[in-house]
Amino acid sequence: MNRKEFRDLASPAEAREAIDSLSLEGGIERVPLTDARGRTLVARLDAELDVPGFDRASLDGYALTARDTFGADEADPAELEVVGSVHAGEEPAVELEAGQAVEISTGAVMPDGADAMVPVERTDTVDTDSDGDNTTVLVRTAVAPGDNVMFAGADVAAGERALGPGTQITPRDIGLLSALGIDEVPVRSKPRVGIVSTGDELVRPGDELDSDRGEIYDVNSYTIAAGVEDAGGEAVLYPHAGDEQDEMERVLRDAAAECDLVLSSGSTSASAVDVIYRVIEEQGELLLHGVSVKPGKPMLVGRLADSAYVGLPGYPVSAMMVFRTFVAPAIREAAGVPEPESATVTGRMGREERYGEGRLRLMPVGLVQRGPDAEDDRDAAPRVDDSDNAPLVYPVDKGSGATTSLAQADGVVEVGPETDYLEAGESVRVRLFSPDVRPPTLLGVGEDDPTLNRLLDRLENPRYLPVGSRPGLRRLRDGVPDVAVIAGPIERDTDATELGGWIREWGLVVRPGNPDEIEGLSDLVDRDLRFVNRTSDSGLRVSLERALAELADDRGAGQHELADSISGYDIGLRAHESPARTVVAGEADAALGLRETADHLSLEFVPLGEQSVRVFANPDRTAKASVRELETALAENSNEGT
Amino acid sequence: MNRKEFRDLASPAEAREAIDSLSLEGGIERVPLTDARGRTLVARLDAELDVPGFDRASLDGYALTARDTFGADEADPAELEVVGSVHAGEEPAVELEAGQAVEISTGAVMPDGADAMVPVERTDTVDTDSDGDNTTVLVRTAVAPGDNVMFAGADVAAGERALGPGTQITPRDIGLLSALGIDEVPVRSKPRVGIVSTGDELVRPGDELDSDRGEIYDVNSYTIAAGVEDAGGEAVLYPHAGDEQDEMERVLRDAAAECDLVLSSGSTSASAVDVIYRVIEEQGELLLHGVSVKPGKPMLVGRLADSAYVGLPGYPVSAMMVFRTFVAPAIREAAGVPEPESATVTGRMGREERYGEGRLRLMPVGLVQRGPDAEDDRDAAPRVDDSDNAPLVYPVDKGSGATTSLAQADGVVEVGPETDYLEAGESVRVRLFSPDVRPPTLLGVGEDDPTLNRLLDRLENPRYLPVGSRPGLRRLRDGVPDVAVIAGPIERDTDATELGGWIREWGLVVRPGNPDEIEGLSDLVDRDLRFVNRTSDSGLRVSLERALAELADDRGAGQHELADSISGYDIGLRAHESPARTVVAGEADAALGLRETADHLSLEFVPLGEQSVRVFANPDRTAKASVRELETALAENSNEGT
Repeated sequence: MNRKEFRDLASPAEAREAIDSLSLEGGIERVPLTDARGRTLVARLDAELDVPGFDRASLDGYALTARDTFGADEADPAELEVVGSVHAGEEPAVELEAGQAVEISTGAVMPDGADAMVPVERTDTVDTDSDGDNTTVLVRTAVAPGDNVMFAGADVAAGERALGPGTQITPRDIGLLSALGIDEVPVRSKPRVGIVSTGDELVRPGDELDSDRGEIYDVNSYTIAAGVEDAGGEAVLYPHAGDEQDEMERVLRDAAAECDLVLSSGSTSASAVDVIYRVIEEQGELLLHGVSVKPGKPMLVGRLADSAYVGLPGYPVSAMMVFRTFVAPAIREAAGVPEPESATVTGRMGREERYGEGRLRLMPVGLVQRGPDAEDDRDAAPRVDDSDNAPLVYPVDKGSGATTSLAQADGVVEVGPETDYLEAGESVRVRLFSPDVRPPTLLGVGEDDPTLNRLLDRLENPRYLPVGSRPGLRRLRDGVPDVAVIAGPIERDTDATELGGWIREWGLVVRPGNPDEIEGLSDLVDRDLRFVNRTSDSGLRVSLERALAELADDRGAGQHELADSISGYDIGLRAHESPARTVVAGEADAALGLRETADHLSLEFVPLGEQSVRVFANPDRTAKASVRELETALAENSNEGT
Repeated sequence: MNRKEFRDLASPAEAREAIDSLSLEGGIERVPLTDARGRTLVARLDAELDVPGFDRASLDGYALTARDTFGADEADPAELEVVGSVHAGEEPAVELEAGQAVEISTGAVMPDGADAMVPVERTDTVDTDSDGDNTTVLVRTAVAPGDNVMFAGADVAAGERALGPGTQITPRDIGLLSALGIDEVPVRSKPRVGIVSTGDELVRPGDELDSDRGEIYDVNSYTIAAGVEDAGGEAVLYPHAGDEQDEMERVLRDAAAECDLVLSSGSTSASAVDVIYRVIEEQGELLLHGVSVKPGKPMLVGRLADSAYVGLPGYPVSAMMVFRTFVAPAIREAAGVPEPESATVTGRMGREERYGEGRLRLMPVGLVQRGPDAEDDRDAAPRVDDSDNAPLVYPVDKGSGATTSLAQADGVVEVGPETDYLEAGESVRVRLFSPDVRPPTLLGVGEDDPTLNRLLDRLENPRYLPVGSRPGLRRLRDGVPDVAVIAGPIERDTDATELGGWIREWGLVVRPGNPDEIEGLSDLVDRDLRFVNRTSDSGLRVSLERALAELADDRGAGQHELADSISGYDIGLRAHESPARTVVAGEADAALGLRETADHLSLEFVPLGEQSVRVFANPDRTAKASVRELETALAENSNEGT
């Protein structure tokens, strides 16, 4: 096979051009009015009738000849003979002559001979006949011809241009179409976008995962599908193609036959690329392989049979960034759904950021509002230029493989290939993921804790990054987060403001019923038990180390010596539940953890001590509403506990 | 019946309180991940597993012990024995010892004994065995423990707070949920909102309309339904309730039993109110009748059985304004769909606006951008303060009964009850109907014309108000629109810039085959024929008057005398097609119109003359992109015609 080589990466502009050169449009369909909201009209719709279709009374009152009221006022009303009545939805049975009036309801047809109407509030009735109907009305105001009448065609007149091609139909347009009696409209079909995820390691959410075999849940299929729908396309999920080439080839061909655009992800690995190349070579054309953008370099653009094709990288962040930057605009264009304009925010970098790979960088970022007392509190040396009230912008980069790089971000800063340094305080433009993104009200960092998880539920839209106690304190000092949550002893002084806290019980989480009869740290040191520890970022680990130091003192031994004698002491897991779950899985006999975790997972708990968890606020943010709310929640929690 | 009286109108704040006191919430349901986009989570979701679930290679290359590479560089590579390979989705079959490496794919499980990996680009292979597998690798760089490895839980760790209650689920959140293997989420049920339109005159779009009986198409049902869906509710359309009380009562009871909220429209008329009062009295509670807001005064708020109830006014604009202002926020709240923040624009009033009824006014407005040469062209006396580039704001008010009052508007200005005068140039805040509203690129006014309708199709998102030639010219002079389209002779000079134009043939539109053998104006004057005219705003009417004056001159008669002898001369219709459609309907023998209209409706045409249609630009806007585009379209149209 004569594989094409793309030694040089294409520029982002070339990638856009390549995608624009593909046709994604899905044709035209007619949809009922009830399904028309948000769809895009393909043809101009001119009015084919007048709205209203008749001269219509605007109020309840009397239809009459304006001339009969000239000169009338409160003191000297015009007296008219009432010769009948017309209600909405009725054809008038009478024709007016001079000196006559007809009782008329809002929306009813003006009878022949009437050229104006007067509202009932400006009239009095005088006589009633034996049926109780009014026979004479006193009109206490003068009206001009046309007063209180909506003439035929006054809203829309036949022949008028009602809606133009390309209109994205709003509820208001549906009102106009309803008024014209139109119950079906020609709209652009949604582009059908087939999604093919490849990789033997992928498992659909809801199915069982085998981590030992390196299986992971398929993130891209559902995420990209939601992105396709956001952009106005129709997503079609194809069954997983493993790395088996025949199967992948068959899935790709099916998708190409059924869709306007095929997106594959993970298809940039060597074996997948071979299949793509083969199918493209037989039935299509490869336009581009590799783009100078980070993340997202290994992108493919081409044609598969009659369908457009884009190969997205396998890593979720890369896939989503390439999708948003290059593919979503093309789907929007084909669907006729314009990009919302109002989704850009200007912020200031919360810290410096270096980068120098000479590629366009799509940097996911979070936003944090500094709140009211950035200005009130002039004593605090501002860490960034806070002369305006722009939000702080911080990069969220846990790597292209991390889904949280996107879920914990609010938007993207595009950093040009020529820029390799962004200063702290520098102004940057953040493209929000969508116009309805609401940046979090509170940004917290620090220790992972189940009590904290519950406390945060009392706030609206908080964001918490469980980076651990030590890194949390460091980040708070650097000035970006609002609060940091610190567990266990703190080594250094902090100028942060303590908002409150709670006590948690820590110890060893062991199997239900404690079959190994573990009573404390000594058992781990002296017996052949498998232990699972936390990483050194965790406040729990710090407390464990102190306890081990005490035990070493008691025994006159070295702390390292004792640690070395605990099997698994060096294996630190990141999360507060992970060690305990290792016990559940039968892969460990004891884990460092909390009583609450043991209870939650129905395990047994061997207490080793208590530690305080304290919440510290950035001194510049103590007046921020969400910080005060958290303070209140902490106080309430303390009271509930007592 | 002891009907409650509400003599004083409630304030808008009281109306909001009354609606807030009703419970619209629809409960909780579980939806699959594929349907979760945009829905609102009701509970916190904590991670129940680590993502990734294993230590994972971030690149293609070799897993090894970092210690073995210490000191290695290009010149002095480390040489390691290759003892196997691991691909993504495989369980490693080997355990590493010192001096060994394992070939590893991106995403594969790090084998036991390995604590780092080196990418393939920094290695060379030396020997291969008889199977073609590498047996020795040269590592040309030193790596530290953890390099190029994503540790278990590095993305999300078990026990972490993944998504909080109240999260409106984005594609990025779907990514996070997928990664956690969650395929179903608990979300707020969409509030079910029943819509009941009342009125004997209403006909569903698509059905036949009888204008003589005063029938109109039901606008509110579909419009409010679309608004309900926009706000995150589920709309249920109930069959039309006529004004027949038993039927209306039955429909209301059904809706109350099946929905969280019942909206009726048109239910504020006297007979409908009686039914509502009766149902409410038997099974509910009336909280409020009448709000101090315009439009929208006759609003009802109460409870119908277990359902909340709001009675909307019947007029489409009133109904939609009340819905948007009072009801949509409550539906959003119940659905957990927050109001988008970014939908407010500051503009300047394009003309003064007086109003003094002492009620909160919800004023639908359009926006027009003044474009680049508001600043370039300092000679033109600015009609409003254009020191900034804020868009001009103009009220769109064709009455509460007109659907175009909303379809031709971009948003709403709230004018407080204490304000009864807005100056031209005054700064106002416009709440856009939604954040994705794009104000039109071009605002045109003037004559209605089929050639124009087609020309506008070449522009993106233009808005055209067919107010007629004379009012169009007047509005252009007042400075709000970009262009005016004028047909026929112009009486006065204008300082506007002519962009181009075309010629149209006008005359009498008569029945197919011209059975009355109408040859010209004389036939209308001398014979007993039914004629339909246009209003005096129309350029066609001006040309007709001139022709009639010439005929009068020829005959030595008075023009009025001739006009009086034409049956229907005084009946002027607004739209260029309406008179001809009267001929189609058999209600007239001849109509003032265009050859193009006759052709379009398969009628016969009796030419009376030609008239020019000219497009004039606001002199301040000639450099605006859309004005230039229209100029180009006019030039192309002229060339196509020759």
